[in-house]
Amino acid sequence: MFRIISQDKKTEARTGEIATTHGKILTPAFMPVATMGAAKTLSSEELEEMDYKLILANAFHLYLKPGLKIIKKFGGLHNFMNWNQGLLTDSGGYQIFSLKNTKVTEEGVNFRSSLDGSSHFFSPEVSIKVQEILGADIIMAFDECLGYPVECKRAKESMERSMRWAIRSKKAHRNNKQFLFGIVQGSTDKDLRRTSLERLEEIGFPGYGIGSLSIGEPEEMMFEIVDSLIPLMPENKPRYLMGLGKPSQLLEMIKKGVDLFDSSFPTRIARNGSCLTHQGKIIIRDSKFKNDTAPIDENCSCPVCRNYTRAYIRHLFNVGEVLALRLASYHNLFYLNHLTKEARKAIAENNFSSFYSLTKEALKG
Amino acid sequence: MFRIISQDKKTEARTGEIATTHGKILTPAFMPVATMGAAKTLSSEELEEMDYKLILANAFHLYLKPGLKIIKKFGGLHNFMNWNQGLLTDSGGYQIFSLKNTKVTEEGVNFRSSLDGSSHFFSPEVSIKVQEILGADIIMAFDECLGYPVECKRAKESMERSMRWAIRSKKAHRNNKQFLFGIVQGSTDKDLRRTSLERLEEIGFPGYGIGSLSIGEPEEMMFEIVDSLIPLMPENKPRYLMGLGKPSQLLEMIKKGVDLFDSSFPTRIARNGSCLTHQGKIIIRDSKFKNDTAPIDENCSCPVCRNYTRAYIRHLFNVGEVLALRLASYHNLFYLNHLTKEARKAIAENNFSSFYSLTKEALKG
Repeated sequence: MFRIISQDKKTEARTGEIATTHGKILTPAFMPVATMGAAKTLSSEELEEMDYKLILANAFHLYLKPGLKIIKKFGGLHNFMNWNQGLLTDSGGYQIFSLKNTKVTEEGVNFRSSLDGSSHFFSPEVSIKVQEILGADIIMAFDECLGYPVECKRAKESMERSMRWAIRSKKAHRNNKQFLFGIVQGSTDKDLRRTSLERLEEIGFPGYGIGSLSIGEPEEMMFEIVDSLIPLMPENKPRYLMGLGKPSQLLEMIKKGVDLFDSSFPTRIARNGSCLTHQGKIIIRDSKFKNDTAPIDENCSCPVCRNYTRAYIRHLFNVGEVLALRLASYHNLFYLNHLTKEARKAIAENNFSSFYSLTKEALKG
Repeated sequence: MFRIISQDKKTEARTGEIATTHGKILTPAFMPVATMGAAKTLSSEELEEMDYKLILANAFHLYLKPGLKIIKKFGGLHNFMNWNQGLLTDSGGYQIFSLKNTKVTEEGVNFRSSLDGSSHFFSPEVSIKVQEILGADIIMAFDECLGYPVECKRAKESMERSMRWAIRSKKAHRNNKQFLFGIVQGSTDKDLRRTSLERLEEIGFPGYGIGSLSIGEPEEMMFEIVDSLIPLMPENKPRYLMGLGKPSQLLEMIKKGVDLFDSSFPTRIARNGSCLTHQGKIIIRDSKFKNDTAPIDENCSCPVCRNYTRAYIRHLFNVGEVLALRLASYHNLFYLNHLTKEARKAIAENNFSSFYSLTKEALKG
């Protein structure tokens, strides 16, 4: 399902292609997050117009609402949300372990819905079944996610449970049109991370996620974990760093050889009035933009930058117009997709190091 | 600026064309309301894509935010909001008289901004100046608006003041690229309405608004006022019934010979989860739609109806996704524009009576 197209000579950066029944996905790729079956404020057509080929949806949220019965009636999430490109669902692990009052046993997790207090049970088998009904092209093993920081003993026990759950996830996985990825756990302990990866490779998956990073640990520490892991990961399988969306971090991780990313960061900051540009983040709400006839980003070719000015978008934020959220969200997602396209081009032209340095410098603003 | 294209033989319905420097507007026409320089949740491109040729913006709101200095810098509201079709601004009268603690004198109105408490003064001269800077194709005389019900003496005095203000509005109006419309006042008193219209005709305007209707009076009463006024209005000038947006009311008023309408109704009900259809209004939030694979309106060709189902849109409302508001708003505005298109076609084919009866019946659901 994955082939490497180009390998940069000076860094670990590479371009590749994931082939799914919903088309081919060029990597490195960033996935917009469509938690509830829609990337916040945006439509499926807009994501397609931006040229996204892979997006992420949350199995846990969609299981609760609208529920599997409805998704089943539509023959899966693709049809339900009218999305005809690649789709990845996470297993629900991360969301469930963010809840309070969960009860974790070896069998799985009992939790209460934050929507109506109803009782539910998730396990590797349940999660895979849910993801089968949702019908994404890539699905994730069900794992236990810990916060940061966490005691070493707890991290070890949890990682070992997640690896036993990875075995059960694989056993439960039957639909061979869906690729099941394993997820490396082990908190910030390099040895635990290595062990986790070894276990997953023994089980065998067509791709590997790196979980429980970018959850509050220092950026340096995250970089170190990834640095220690990447050389151990199989070259010919996609590497997916879960939960990353800052341009500077994407750039860094692409350099280290990561292929896939997802994050709600670009749409979340957009709703707060922040926009990503080639010269770093700008706070579009800032009064200094009140007369500014320039687009959000002079170097961006998205429809928002072609049609609207900073002054207009600032005004929309100022008066609470929903259109403000849309324009900023659209631009930010367009920008991130563009960043990965530029990275792929630089890698293909064996020019990534120079692209990396120039982009890193420019992003400082 | 206005010519009649077809006159229905059995009713007062007619089609016409208003020629502005931003293109031609076919009537009867409905105007989406872009109070702050954006139709709620929607972009200028979307209004253009829906084939709207005329929209309304509020002079009062834009005067307060972003303020005239910024709009001036952009050379007017068209540029500021990137809208290249026809634009109409109201004078601010209606908005100002909805405020508390206003002080009205013959000279004008002192009021405090509801945004920051700052003091402001509007008069016919100020309103026309503001509208000149906004640069709409059609602008409105500054008038005093009363609520419903109101004492006859008060209605008479106010109407007479509005007529004196209409004289001052016309005197202050200099930009001959902008068409200034007078506004008929006189509350629910037919004699006052007739007197108001006569005064306006003496002053002479290229078009006439009917103000202070659809503000709480019984629908019957509104119909009667319009019935009494229309035969007195000049045939060769556009007739604009301010603040109307319900499909059944539009249909009725088109039959009576009204040419222009505006209302925030379609976008306001959309945000509450109501959608307009050929079979009347539906509450898309209703649980009966939870499994419904049909579009909002089977007979609608808008992108929302082509791409999304009732079940999906209901789900988006259910989980609070902004996209829900967008899809319902887009559909409702598309539907109203389509309704006026169908009406124009029926009038042109001298078939309006039959169209009227069938549509009225269908709208009952």
